[in-house]
Amino acid sequence: MQTITNLPNEWSYVIGPYNPPVAVVKPGETITVLTADAFENKIDSVDADLVNIIELPFVNPLVGPIFVEGAEKGDTLSVSIESIEVTRDYGVSALIPEFGGLCGTTFTRMLNPPLPARIMLHPIQNGLITFSDELDIPRIPYEPFYGTIGTAPQVEAVSSLSPGFHGGNMDAADVCPGNTIHLPVNVTGALLYVGDGHATQGDAEVSGVATEIPTRGILTINLIKGESIATPRILSKDYIMTVGSARPMEDAARIAFYELVVWLEKGYGIERLMAYQLCSQVARVRLANMVDILYSVVAKFPKRYLPSSQKI
Amino acid sequence: MQTITNLPNEWSYVIGPYNPPVAVVKPGETITVLTADAFENKIDSVDADLVNIIELPFVNPLVGPIFVEGAEKGDTLSVSIESIEVTRDYGVSALIPEFGGLCGTTFTRMLNPPLPARIMLHPIQNGLITFSDELDIPRIPYEPFYGTIGTAPQVEAVSSLSPGFHGGNMDAADVCPGNTIHLPVNVTGALLYVGDGHATQGDAEVSGVATEIPTRGILTINLIKGESIATPRILSKDYIMTVGSARPMEDAARIAFYELVVWLEKGYGIERLMAYQLCSQVARVRLANMVDILYSVVAKFPKRYLPSSQKI
Amino acid sequence: MQTITNLPNEWSYVIGPYNPPVAVVKPGETITVLTADAFENKIDSVDADLVNIIELPFVNPLVGPIFVEGAEKGDTLSVSIESIEVTRDYGVSALIPEFGGLCGTTFTRMLNPPLPARIMLHPIQNGLITFSDELDIPRIPYEPFYGTIGTAPQVEAVSSLSPGFHGGNMDAADVCPGNTIHLPVNVTGALLYVGDGHATQGDAEVSGVATEIPTRGILTINLIKGESIATPRILSKDYIMTVGSARPMEDAARIAFYELVVWLEKGYGIERLMAYQLCSQVARVRLANMVDILYSVVAKFPKRYLPSSQKI
Amino acid sequence: MQTITNLPNEWSYVIGPYNPPVAVVKPGETITVLTADAFENKIDSVDADLVNIIELPFVNPLVGPIFVEGAEKGDTLSVSIESIEVTRDYGVSALIPEFGGLCGTTFTRMLNPPLPARIMLHPIQNGLITFSDELDIPRIPYEPFYGTIGTAPQVEAVSSLSPGFHGGNMDAADVCPGNTIHLPVNVTGALLYVGDGHATQGDAEVSGVATEIPTRGILTINLIKGESIATPRILSKDYIMTVGSARPMEDAARIAFYELVVWLEKGYGIERLMAYQLCSQVARVRLANMVDILYSVVAKFPKRYLPSSQKI
Repeated sequence: MQTITNLPNEWSYVIGPYNPPVAVVKPGETITVLTADAFENKIDSVDADLVNIIELPFVNPLVGPIFVEGAEKGDTLSVSIESIEVTRDYGVSALIPEFGGLCGTTFTRMLNPPLPARIMLHPIQNGLITFSDELDIPRIPYEPFYGTIGTAPQVEAVSSLSPGFHGGNMDAADVCPGNTIHLPVNVTGALLYVGDGHATQGDAEVSGVATEIPTRGILTINLIKGESIATPRILSKDYIMTVGSARPMEDAARIAFYELVVWLEKGYGIERLMAYQLCSQVARVRLANMVDILYSVVAKFPKRYLPSSQKI
Repeated sequence: MQTITNLPNEWSYVIGPYNPPVAVVKPGETITVLTADAFENKIDSVDADLVNIIELPFVNPLVGPIFVEGAEKGDTLSVSIESIEVTRDYGVSALIPEFGGLCGTTFTRMLNPPLPARIMLHPIQNGLITFSDELDIPRIPYEPFYGTIGTAPQVEAVSSLSPGFHGGNMDAADVCPGNTIHLPVNVTGALLYVGDGHATQGDAEVSGVATEIPTRGILTINLIKGESIATPRILSKDYIMTVGSARPMEDAARIAFYELVVWLEKGYGIERLMAYQLCSQVARVRLANMVDILYSVVAKFPKRYLPSSQKI
Repeated sequence: MQTITNLPNEWSYVIGPYNPPVAVVKPGETITVLTADAFENKIDSVDADLVNIIELPFVNPLVGPIFVEGAEKGDTLSVSIESIEVTRDYGVSALIPEFGGLCGTTFTRMLNPPLPARIMLHPIQNGLITFSDELDIPRIPYEPFYGTIGTAPQVEAVSSLSPGFHGGNMDAADVCPGNTIHLPVNVTGALLYVGDGHATQGDAEVSGVATEIPTRGILTINLIKGESIATPRILSKDYIMTVGSARPMEDAARIAFYELVVWLEKGYGIERLMAYQLCSQVARVRLANMVDILYSVVAKFPKRYLPSSQKI
Repeated sequence: MQTITNLPNEWSYVIGPYNPPVAVVKPGETITVLTADAFENKIDSVDADLVNIIELPFVNPLVGPIFVEGAEKGDTLSVSIESIEVTRDYGVSALIPEFGGLCGTTFTRMLNPPLPARIMLHPIQNGLITFSDELDIPRIPYEPFYGTIGTAPQVEAVSSLSPGFHGGNMDAADVCPGNTIHLPVNVTGALLYVGDGHATQGDAEVSGVATEIPTRGILTINLIKGESIATPRILSKDYIMTVGSARPMEDAARIAFYELVVWLEKGYGIERLMAYQLCSQVARVRLANMVDILYSVVAKFPKRYLPSSQKI
């Protein structure tokens, strides 16, 4: 099995078509990917110099681009996540001034004084995360996923901090072991990027940071030729899902639900407006992030309610 | 037990301090409430004249105001929902032109041609809802809740179609049997309003309409003297929850999470910024509605992670 | 000429159908109106106790309701503003913590520390406003307008702090002497409210407060029978204008432009999509406020480009 | 004088650091730039095949990158616009389905049927634009500006359709002859891009398209060493201006006003909160666009109110 990673000082900080591939994979191939955490593994103490470590635009380092043989614009890339192991005995979370869901940011500009910087280290052991020794609360289960996964747009190079139609920094906990994510192919070779492992994360990732970890993940790459999608899709045992990323947040939800309705129509033969009305009764939503350059919303349709002739 | 409802042509269409009470209850009292559906029970056929039935502002009729003895501005009203029965053998959903999450509306004004009006009747029997005979899908469990519940603001009279700091049309499925909702008291007697029963609803209520039903509900009313809250709170077996209602949707999420953080600080002694960081790891979110006059987001903190000395 | 005002402790803090009229006027009548400033004229020193003076919901006091004889739902009320005099020798501006365009608010909830409270008094003399003696800048011309003017909705009572389809707290500098504003009539008598005089204001009213003044204004009230409008319209020598109030701000702009396009179509015979394309070449926009409960945007079409057969 | 343009099939469709310069200029140099219109000059008839001409992402072609000698990250690029001539005898406007301010788009996703595609040609002669022969309205003055001008971000390549902190597709009519725009330098050589000439445009560019023209422009390029700015600034005879680009629109306004306040503080010695209060009295705002990938708002401070010791 290929093990793929970038050279230490050559992480990718954008998802785009301009950098040479770090690896080539064949459709059907299973690979191991080694990722750094969102802070480039530079934080090993609560006293680390957070503000200097976060030297924009060089945060959220990604592995990639990974070139997929045979992928052409108009295809769909399918990435099945077999496993995500943490490769360190702790995760990191932080308060980053001018970043987060409940503070002024570079986009939602405020004259208020900023919140302080703050780092927490969260020991991880036996599948359990210790949030804090100070707080007498149970340990949190290790439920890892990739915060960032995406394929190159045709001409844009998008910050690794941003999600979008190409995937990217969605921070959707559904991108986890056992699930498969579909991504649009916009350029020859698809050019897959992945990183930003999270040991766990609350919906919305409200403070802006999850339990950030370096990972060893196993992925199986497949290619769906001649079928194109407009936005990422995720399949789990129980749900088919679409991801919308936009601001304001209602536009993220609109994209996700629109694509879910279109999928129910084209993929499962449920007339479009009936699908709309059905989603209004049975759909589920995950607010994936309310902190990134765009917000991400996952619209979920329970497979249980797919027409019986069409179950997948 | 008192049975409370409004006279047939005297439903409330606003939540405010201006109408005389339809009933008086004592703290600790358990009452039965009879509500009409959001269309005033006027739809009994898919051929009903939807556009004329929806004669704004006379939609989403509420029972109320219910005067609670002893309630004064600055208190908190607690409403425990014991049960919600449907009093008809079907629910109604509909497409309403210029209303919904994926179409131009009176707020998100578009020049596009509108979507068509359309009515569906959904038979309800033995705790199961039939979405459609045309579509070969399983029946949907009956999981009822009140779409609208709230207390009068001090001087405003708010449309029954709008949620807000006073509660109102949140369309949050957590307002269900087994749960307790806390609402701010802004005027003497609190003046509680309730209605808009839903037999089931998807997160976001994306088409704008759930499975709308008339109900017979049993509620226990309590009063928490001298404690005020800024926005509705909900308690279930597993979560403490806060509701934010605003546009754009990120502001609804901000209100909900801000109030959750404040609650964790003042109610459970978790320092504010640590609570913020903890929510970023373990919180859950329900997108309650993306269609009403304001959007509603429920931020949920798992009771499991409350400090052990403080569990409620 | 009638002089209309409210009793000192009986200002209106909502725009709605529930309070008895303070005066009755006939269509065609010219009246004098005496308004208090947004702080109820309570600030006469930079050391005033701002936080206690702003005792929500009792801010932005309005004169009204004024009952207009013959006005019925479906008509349009026309208010021509003849003059607005300041009745004090200074205006007041302030920083109000948790209110304003560049700070966390009760809607855009932030954990950041709030900005400080601060009051400024601005002497007004000979048509000129002194912003500050500390700052060596020219005096500002006195260009008065009403921040708040509106008619009662049918069943809602809306805070005097909020704009909406009914007019209200738009903070649009186009509501000034020489111009005429059209407002929808939703109830018998129209029930007009007016207040919130501004001696001058920047577009957007970014800190949340203009140069607030008590006023003596002269208004001529007319009635347009049998014609209804969806949102306020303003006519000046040079422009026809529509006002949209909503959040997010793009929805305010959408409402304003949609109504402007509809007006060009129905009022001036310019086909709807051509009107849309023409606005894209010649329209002007005023961002009226970015601080109130809803934001207000004024879309302006230059009369110069109205079809020559249709000039008004 | 250098005349700079790109080869016909080698326009730039992103603003980024990845493409080789098409020209090198020295600080102080005056250049001529030849730009194509937003449709690559492909439309010469109202019957042109609009949907095929708009082959995303290959729209809004830009001239560039232009390398400025001596420019380094942390400097500011100053571009004075001397003149913009139209190089064709007509401009083009259009309705583009799923693009515009009053219709569903790829971001504000709607299930409504789309608006039709439509092209208009607008003759330009003697400084006057004929909007339409069908409509009896005066001709519109030729008031040209660049819709798109920007400098490369450090690692991102941004679609030429998007504005941002780097400038880009702001569609701000203040980028016109007589004015000077300041842009951040993020990479060696600054890498300037320019295009998207407009013969005139309404505020907001509501239908999504202005009067699009190919141009011959004369620009003078200067470099301000060692001074960095966060967002574009524009200087005219009467105003100093800042541009914010974001969604929702209030965030665009927040960025613009925040940067204006900071400029008044750092550049003119007006204490920050006093500047905030002063802007609330005298600032002006242009809503530049409500249709692009981000919305753009220009906050304007009248030079007349700059402290007299500091006038520029």
